[in-house]
Amino acid sequence: MPPFMAMTEETKKKYPFGVKERIARLEPYRPGKPIDEVKRELGLKDVIKLASNESPYGPSPKVLQAMRQTIKQVNRYPDGGCFYLRDALAKHLGVEPNQLIFGNGSDEVIVTALRAFVQEGEEVVIAKPSFLIYEIASCVVGAQVKAIPLKDFQYDLEGMKKAVSPKTKMIFIGNPDNPAGSYVSQKQLENFLNEISSQILVFVDEAYFEYVQAADYPDTITLLSKYPNLIIARTFSKMYGLAGLRVGFGIARSEVIDILNRLREPFNVNSIAQAAALACLKDQAYYRRIAKEIEEQRKFLYQSFEKMGLSFVKTVTNFLLIDVKTKSDEVSCRLLKKGVIVRDMAFWGLPTFIRVTIGAPSENRKFLRVLKEILKSA
Amino acid sequence: MPPFMAMTEETKKKYPFGVKERIARLEPYRPGKPIDEVKRELGLKDVIKLASNESPYGPSPKVLQAMRQTIKQVNRYPDGGCFYLRDALAKHLGVEPNQLIFGNGSDEVIVTALRAFVQEGEEVVIAKPSFLIYEIASCVVGAQVKAIPLKDFQYDLEGMKKAVSPKTKMIFIGNPDNPAGSYVSQKQLENFLNEISSQILVFVDEAYFEYVQAADYPDTITLLSKYPNLIIARTFSKMYGLAGLRVGFGIARSEVIDILNRLREPFNVNSIAQAAALACLKDQAYYRRIAKEIEEQRKFLYQSFEKMGLSFVKTVTNFLLIDVKTKSDEVSCRLLKKGVIVRDMAFWGLPTFIRVTIGAPSENRKFLRVLKEILKSA
Repeated sequence: MPPFMAMTEETKKKYPFGVKERIARLEPYRPGKPIDEVKRELGLKDVIKLASNESPYGPSPKVLQAMRQTIKQVNRYPDGGCFYLRDALAKHLGVEPNQLIFGNGSDEVIVTALRAFVQEGEEVVIAKPSFLIYEIASCVVGAQVKAIPLKDFQYDLEGMKKAVSPKTKMIFIGNPDNPAGSYVSQKQLENFLNEISSQILVFVDEAYFEYVQAADYPDTITLLSKYPNLIIARTFSKMYGLAGLRVGFGIARSEVIDILNRLREPFNVNSIAQAAALACLKDQAYYRRIAKEIEEQRKFLYQSFEKMGLSFVKTVTNFLLIDVKTKSDEVSCRLLKKGVIVRDMAFWGLPTFIRVTIGAPSENRKFLRVLKEILKSA
Repeated sequence: MPPFMAMTEETKKKYPFGVKERIARLEPYRPGKPIDEVKRELGLKDVIKLASNESPYGPSPKVLQAMRQTIKQVNRYPDGGCFYLRDALAKHLGVEPNQLIFGNGSDEVIVTALRAFVQEGEEVVIAKPSFLIYEIASCVVGAQVKAIPLKDFQYDLEGMKKAVSPKTKMIFIGNPDNPAGSYVSQKQLENFLNEISSQILVFVDEAYFEYVQAADYPDTITLLSKYPNLIIARTFSKMYGLAGLRVGFGIARSEVIDILNRLREPFNVNSIAQAAALACLKDQAYYRRIAKEIEEQRKFLYQSFEKMGLSFVKTVTNFLLIDVKTKSDEVSCRLLKKGVIVRDMAFWGLPTFIRVTIGAPSENRKFLRVLKEILKSA
């Protein structure tokens, strides 16, 4: 959408105080359907959700304990500076505390970076398909988005570099990428950063960092000293299983973080999220076990798809793309009616693909059973 | 600060990718110090906080129960639409569900309204002093702020009306006002709305709504049908005692809400906040008791100040301004060293005033005792 599109007569009439036409027309993010909503709307009792790349497991006992201790004090505002969490996370990552910004989910870090550094009419380069928030949030600030198609479900970094113009202000690299599940290697990322002007911010979104086992996956934090234009985002929503609590973070040079901190809301991370995230950091063993289990389930799913003759995209994350070789909207709709929520990729431009989160063993078995039934009768 | 100020050489050097000078210079919100921070920094054991207009009481047993039930499911994303909370709140308020937007605190509703409707170079009219976020968030979007001084700690609506220019896009009315604790009556508000063009949004912030007993306090929701340019904000942070959880809301015509919903993050309200707020609505009796107790404590404080010969501003809220007739920064600093956190009003342009939250009876007694000691030796 052109950032400076004039208000239509219809918009003017509806909004006498005015609104930017691009915002009046904005297509909001479409989240995976909540389990409760599906139960309510379809009258189903047993519903599993493999649509939002959540962890199938609740918080560890230690994390639950930290939450229970905090719920009685919610009449007090949260610590706006996230003191204890910041201190522990800085040590955990080997960065300075002032190199961290916390967000109400890492999506808030993405939005805040765009609000801080990208002006109306400037350009943002993203991959296509990739996490929808990159495009939506860029549109909100009035940026022109250049979306470079993936090549064989991998980032086309060469193509993204060529898309850079004097107006380009930010480049998003989802690493690993959502929905492809593929990743950019250390060498690829370094080469890319070497060839990009330091006047362009490179935002590396590592939401699925904790799942990646690949030896050549980048150690992005060590690149911060060489590339002042680098911003990294990670989250407690995925492997740490705190999606419902909303806590993510950004890592960058302190001067970049300083700007982001000026723009965020003073109490953007709630008290329970802070306590729970801190407890997660102290309970690494629990989360390593989960990562290991997801890895085993990934192998199990690969084997099952091969037996079924289905092609899929190999992933380093807890989700994967499956080519159902028929209309994905129909397949996902039929899965939904059987109580299995997955993501239809038609909206992402992949009309025969569904994206499925790797769930607990019983969830994966149910998904495979229902998918087999549906594809047999398709 | 002028919205279009050019980048200085220093800023350019620090940020080769550029940043708006007004954002590089932004003075962030200064929150009240958290109790933990004061204990840590001053080595104190007993600290009370009367600085952030929080409820001194934790959640009700029913609310705690709702939170406990939710903490095990935080691995799932929150319901982005806040279905159950929206439905219950709409019924509670007598509005349609699509007239509500939920925020990560009501401050997020303020920021979102500015991002949606106010463009760089346009003007925002506020009172001075008032809630700092109105000014900070206006500055972030590049608006020019016109701040009209209170008259005898009351909104000067006549002065605010005169400040309106063809560039004016939004007017903030804190009702009751923070930090004054005074309010605009139904008649005053209606007269004001009648005289303001429908091309200007009037944002009425009712964060302390539940504390107000005054018979002529506005029933703002009923005004929505007549004034399409009206936005109301309320919160669960104050009387409902959920400050730590971050949940507030806006009420407006559905077309205004539609725009705000396009701009917010998809999962901006965490799951525990949704469950707790819903339980609050169902447990009104508990909160009415708290409101009554705060009212009694307010009277007790009035009487105590009168005995001490201190002048103060009468309030309809759970906080009040006290004129300590000496430097407020010194008094608040000395109170802090004795473990009593209050808000120094010097930054707000009231260099002999402190703002004090009405706490639990024991907290109020401690505050009075320490204040007496300090003023005796001043």
